[in-house]
Amino acid sequence: MYAHRPAGRGSVRTSRGTVALGIDFGGTFTKLGVVDADGRVLVRRSFPTAEAALPEDWLRRVRDEAEQCLSGLRSVRVSGVGAGVPGQVDFQRGFVYNLVNVPGWEKIHLARRLTRTLDLPAVVDNDANAMALGEYRYGAGKGFRHAVFVTLGTGVGGGIVIDGRLHRGAHSMAGEIGHMTLNLRGRRSIMGRGGLEQYVGNRRIAERARRAIRRGRKSLITEMVHGELERIDPRVIAQAARRGDALAIEIFDFVAECLAAAFATITYILQPEAFIVGGGVAQSGKLLFDPLRRHLQERLHPIFYSRLAVLRAALRTDAGVVGAAALVLPQ
Amino acid sequence: MYAHRPAGRGSVRTSRGTVALGIDFGGTFTKLGVVDADGRVLVRRSFPTAEAALPEDWLRRVRDEAEQCLSGLRSVRVSGVGAGVPGQVDFQRGFVYNLVNVPGWEKIHLARRLTRTLDLPAVVDNDANAMALGEYRYGAGKGFRHAVFVTLGTGVGGGIVIDGRLHRGAHSMAGEIGHMTLNLRGRRSIMGRGGLEQYVGNRRIAERARRAIRRGRKSLITEMVHGELERIDPRVIAQAARRGDALAIEIFDFVAECLAAAFATITYILQPEAFIVGGGVAQSGKLLFDPLRRHLQERLHPIFYSRLAVLRAALRTDAGVVGAAALVLPQ
Repeated sequence: MYAHRPAGRGSVRTSRGTVALGIDFGGTFTKLGVVDADGRVLVRRSFPTAEAALPEDWLRRVRDEAEQCLSGLRSVRVSGVGAGVPGQVDFQRGFVYNLVNVPGWEKIHLARRLTRTLDLPAVVDNDANAMALGEYRYGAGKGFRHAVFVTLGTGVGGGIVIDGRLHRGAHSMAGEIGHMTLNLRGRRSIMGRGGLEQYVGNRRIAERARRAIRRGRKSLITEMVHGELERIDPRVIAQAARRGDALAIEIFDFVAECLAAAFATITYILQPEAFIVGGGVAQSGKLLFDPLRRHLQERLHPIFYSRLAVLRAALRTDAGVVGAAALVLPQ
Repeated sequence: MYAHRPAGRGSVRTSRGTVALGIDFGGTFTKLGVVDADGRVLVRRSFPTAEAALPEDWLRRVRDEAEQCLSGLRSVRVSGVGAGVPGQVDFQRGFVYNLVNVPGWEKIHLARRLTRTLDLPAVVDNDANAMALGEYRYGAGKGFRHAVFVTLGTGVGGGIVIDGRLHRGAHSMAGEIGHMTLNLRGRRSIMGRGGLEQYVGNRRIAERARRAIRRGRKSLITEMVHGELERIDPRVIAQAARRGDALAIEIFDFVAECLAAAFATITYILQPEAFIVGGGVAQSGKLLFDPLRRHLQERLHPIFYSRLAVLRAALRTDAGVVGAAALVLPQ
């Protein structure tokens, strides 16, 4: 469908002429971007996923948006389309087993469908893997050979780079850091018991504040949401913490402690050079990273801690699109 | 010191003529073996480590024992000497930072010293890594590309094979599975909090039985050690479990549960094809492996559990020597 050198007005010149289309398939928004070989986003578009959630509709909408993205670009070669999706993927085949929060997406040969729809080579991966790859090549992970990438959100996603390559494991499902056990007899879920996500997922963080307030704990958070406790989310808690609220600070300390325990475990297993942390809660900066480093130091032998960096992800809201494009951009 | 084709009587012929000397440096015994290219041990010797524990004495004793080992072999080429040591090693340099249970071993260039002493190329690694390599090439790990090896003993050692190669991490200290966190607020040690070894190390297993008995729990274990509770060890507990003792069975179930939690975590992070479990407690066979598989199934999503093997290590008491030799044997 797309000529490899699409013509059009208002073109954006790129450094090397090769670009890729990146698709960040989120439960809320689907974002598209044209990304150049240096990881820069030249054009961005997005649509609410709910407007075209079923596979046929989604592919049609993606085709339309992609056309819009690429129409203004001149003198570029589109190397392919990469997609990061929120669920289990067979990377080799570009096959989606299922998407956690998007009904109707089961057993879809997404890579094949994207190629048919867009006439481009397509690669599909788990969204956390795609973000890890983007951050590794173009963001805070540059220069490391061994690094672990973590995205904090409703879920906790992970991507692991070993010896300069994304580690996908035996059946391309590795990197599910959100399901690591933090407590042997902890809360049960379909994924196991006491998983990291059960402690630091956005909903759990908000629940923790609500529970404390309902038990009578005084907190600035209560007035910040005008008593509507359902409106509590990690952003409100971060604001309260910055104003010195004791409960909010405790909650961030607890989140940091849980992450530190998970990072200590991963360090003993894999000994990466760095952890790169992104996603909503990571935007709170020092509020998270100061206690995170402190807890990690307490939980690692100095010979391990002294050789480890803990960094904030750099790509922010573009991470998904850049990562997806990185799946098909030449290195 | 050794001719590459040592002559002598009573020779053992090997399949391809290339052998290596493997040294398994244990806290109790130092074992030496001549291992052929198929991983078979042709000659074995050992000495109590306490008889020659300081580096100078140990090297002299190793030289004498190695001479004995090699003197009877004809028509073989000795490709080198590999040593597995119980402590932190810089693999690239063959440098020992320190050995946990052997005083006097700090900051020793062991590879260099072995080469000088034996006139052979030398490679030094952590003992658990060496065992993992041996089991991977010649034991229960054959045929897998991604496998995790665990040794149960006083400590819990690990070695991780990724894509057919031992993963050593950023500074060759990876694979320290014994220090993974099982409980966020668990028992403290210099390595962190709530580490696996704090639950399934031999001493902890014995302590668990003692504690229950001291609290008044009836058990066959008590009569098996004639009331001398200090004599309880995992072997006695295994014997009691085989005779149907409820406490002993519970303890094995708990050990299995802890290992399952650790394996579930590793599976979500790395997705190996197999876990290979060796060391003392693994010798109890079904007593450990039946509840281990059951707990693992409860703790992993079926999509992960169905693609995973849990196997008993095959090399048994030779594992250390074969693994050490594997460090220098041609593949």
